[in-house]
Amino acid sequence: MATNLSVNGSRLWDTLMVSAGIGTGPRGGIRRLTLTEPDRAMRDQLKAWAAEGGYALSIDRLGSMTLRRPGTEPDLPPVLIGSHLDTQWAGGRFDGILGVLAGLEVLRTLDDLGIATKRTIEVVNWTNEEGARFSPPMLCSLAWSGQATPEWVEGRIDRDGIRFGDALAGIGYRGPEPVGGRRIDAYFELHIEQGPALDAAGVPVGIVTGGYPSCGMRIAVEGETAHTGPTPMAERHNALVGAAMVAVAVNDIGWAHAAVDAKATAARLDLVPNLPGTLSEYAELFIDMRAPAVETLETMKASLRAALPDCAARSRTAIRIAEEWGFGVFGFDAELIGLLRATAERLAIPTMDLRSQAGHDAYHVARVAPACMIFTPCKGGITHNEAEDIDLSATLPGVNLLLHTALARANR
Amino acid sequence: MATNLSVNGSRLWDTLMVSAGIGTGPRGGIRRLTLTEPDRAMRDQLKAWAAEGGYALSIDRLGSMTLRRPGTEPDLPPVLIGSHLDTQWAGGRFDGILGVLAGLEVLRTLDDLGIATKRTIEVVNWTNEEGARFSPPMLCSLAWSGQATPEWVEGRIDRDGIRFGDALAGIGYRGPEPVGGRRIDAYFELHIEQGPALDAAGVPVGIVTGGYPSCGMRIAVEGETAHTGPTPMAERHNALVGAAMVAVAVNDIGWAHAAVDAKATAARLDLVPNLPGTLSEYAELFIDMRAPAVETLETMKASLRAALPDCAARSRTAIRIAEEWGFGVFGFDAELIGLLRATAERLAIPTMDLRSQAGHDAYHVARVAPACMIFTPCKGGITHNEAEDIDLSATLPGVNLLLHTALARANR
Repeated sequence: MATNLSVNGSRLWDTLMVSAGIGTGPRGGIRRLTLTEPDRAMRDQLKAWAAEGGYALSIDRLGSMTLRRPGTEPDLPPVLIGSHLDTQWAGGRFDGILGVLAGLEVLRTLDDLGIATKRTIEVVNWTNEEGARFSPPMLCSLAWSGQATPEWVEGRIDRDGIRFGDALAGIGYRGPEPVGGRRIDAYFELHIEQGPALDAAGVPVGIVTGGYPSCGMRIAVEGETAHTGPTPMAERHNALVGAAMVAVAVNDIGWAHAAVDAKATAARLDLVPNLPGTLSEYAELFIDMRAPAVETLETMKASLRAALPDCAARSRTAIRIAEEWGFGVFGFDAELIGLLRATAERLAIPTMDLRSQAGHDAYHVARVAPACMIFTPCKGGITHNEAEDIDLSATLPGVNLLLHTALARANR
Repeated sequence: MATNLSVNGSRLWDTLMVSAGIGTGPRGGIRRLTLTEPDRAMRDQLKAWAAEGGYALSIDRLGSMTLRRPGTEPDLPPVLIGSHLDTQWAGGRFDGILGVLAGLEVLRTLDDLGIATKRTIEVVNWTNEEGARFSPPMLCSLAWSGQATPEWVEGRIDRDGIRFGDALAGIGYRGPEPVGGRRIDAYFELHIEQGPALDAAGVPVGIVTGGYPSCGMRIAVEGETAHTGPTPMAERHNALVGAAMVAVAVNDIGWAHAAVDAKATAARLDLVPNLPGTLSEYAELFIDMRAPAVETLETMKASLRAALPDCAARSRTAIRIAEEWGFGVFGFDAELIGLLRATAERLAIPTMDLRSQAGHDAYHVARVAPACMIFTPCKGGITHNEAEDIDLSATLPGVNLLLHTALARANR
């Protein structure tokens, strides 16, 4: 295999900029929440690109879209490349998107050069990676890997009470294909680092050796409405106060373990009725906690469990963990990591080992198939913010590593 | 004047129950936020009652509705009776409503008995007393008393960005009359106590001698969006955490002064973007504080001002008081209070002196006209809750006191 085989960087950039024009945010990023109108428009664009390239498109019951470039032995398990095209509310132009469009660029590069592969290569756009509209994140790879049923996913509701299944049908992307259940030879996900390490070190590629053990929780606080005026302090059951105490406790737990790079976040708070003049009767707080070591995460979870009864007693509310989920404890495939290292060395691409602190669909895929991730730099580590940015020149080494490793795997 | 002159209790109850059927809440109370469809329907009902009784109806530019029963000397300043027909989100069936419909019952009783009065008697339904949709509460009596302009009121926006003026026009209740600016002989407001004192003592009438000095604030917290995963604790600017710290500080200040019956409330919190996975970039917290003495309230306000920089520093956000308003420091008219006392004595109605802890339109009216308030019992002091309830038999002494005092004043 020629080491000068390379993707077309300006074509990749052009596709990224087409994406950036779909659901453009008020500050130049992207606001493309899953299963909304901009998400539909982006899916239509991907569909058009698939047709243009002659790649068969299949859509599964949960809306995940797969483009296929057939191999010469199409019965062999395919090589899968993927990420997501949905974004956060104040999302950047590259988070997830780069991984899908780098996959598309790999297919196009192989076509340009007339390279046939033994195995089929597929590119997937996972539905609802971000979890910004439907909780939890990485929802459809969760089902794809057999950890949840499609029915359960379809029944998730957003803050307006809209069901995932109805939103998906509403944008016309409920497909006929089953969710998961087939063999994959290897899964590659290229993603911006979402942290500052590569950018600071001037290294173009991070080889992801694992994730941060992480957990998410939905915490419910029950109080009672009453007039904010005459009701004595000792007779109040203000759900807002209970939730605020939990939010502060979560933040304190994050700080208590900040020295080992752990984090704890109170991210979303919904209140009922949330009006001046009346104490709130109900609150829901979404939190997450992440730590480099499972032991640290377990300590943090125990601290939070211990804090909840105090918050409940002090606010005179009832507080419980209504839902809990975990991610980040997994192993990427040693053989694939070895392939990434060896290929980077052959291509003279500098790399460093990294652990991911964000959630990725690759975590779930890794449960049922060999999987790995390539990180590329993002400026200052800024992400989930419209200012998120990359340099194409610092990104191309990673995309070329994807091309070469996917090709190697597809020919084995 | 005959002391056996009395209102028709069952007719009053019937009108209260008609009101209870308009915007009925899920738990048997009323959800009739100002300038919504249920508010329009209730206004239509009041209009129908005015037509039925032959009372001229005038509607001012801000939608406040006034029914008029002309006196024999119509050029004399009228006697005004009033309260409000809007409710909280989880509102009761009597808060405000009782005062308007007791006023209507006074007019009807005078008609029943063919009693003419020297002065005109009017009954007013103030727009947006509750402040549950447009902040601050008592918005239109504020303008009526010259403390705000109608233009400013019309420009207030609700949480969906809808202007007060547009919402008012939308339900068809923007009237031709100017707001305030005319002389009133006396203002009477009958209201449920919204506290437990009368109910506990078994006394049917509270004579309101004053209010609790109170303040409201809208506190703005500015942060920055970022990914909840990789962003280190020390690089976060989570507006949710800043707001939660302020909410806890407000609650602590309430407890620090609870022994003297002061209160501090974090009532409403709006977050942007308020999604899992992303730190919030903006928060707005609505708080109020009330105390029996001005000095205590000033101490509480100083404590909060001192706490804000700490909350800002600890949460690494910018926190400021974006808006502040006060109410409750006022004097009701000594002559009217004397009239209430003397009349209650003559009618053998037990009374006790009370101070109001809630806000009322009477506070604003008192700035420009002689005003007073009559409190009647509410069970267990429960209010701003759908379980709010009254006994008719415990309420009628107060309504009869309203009848006799309004009549005395209308004939002077």
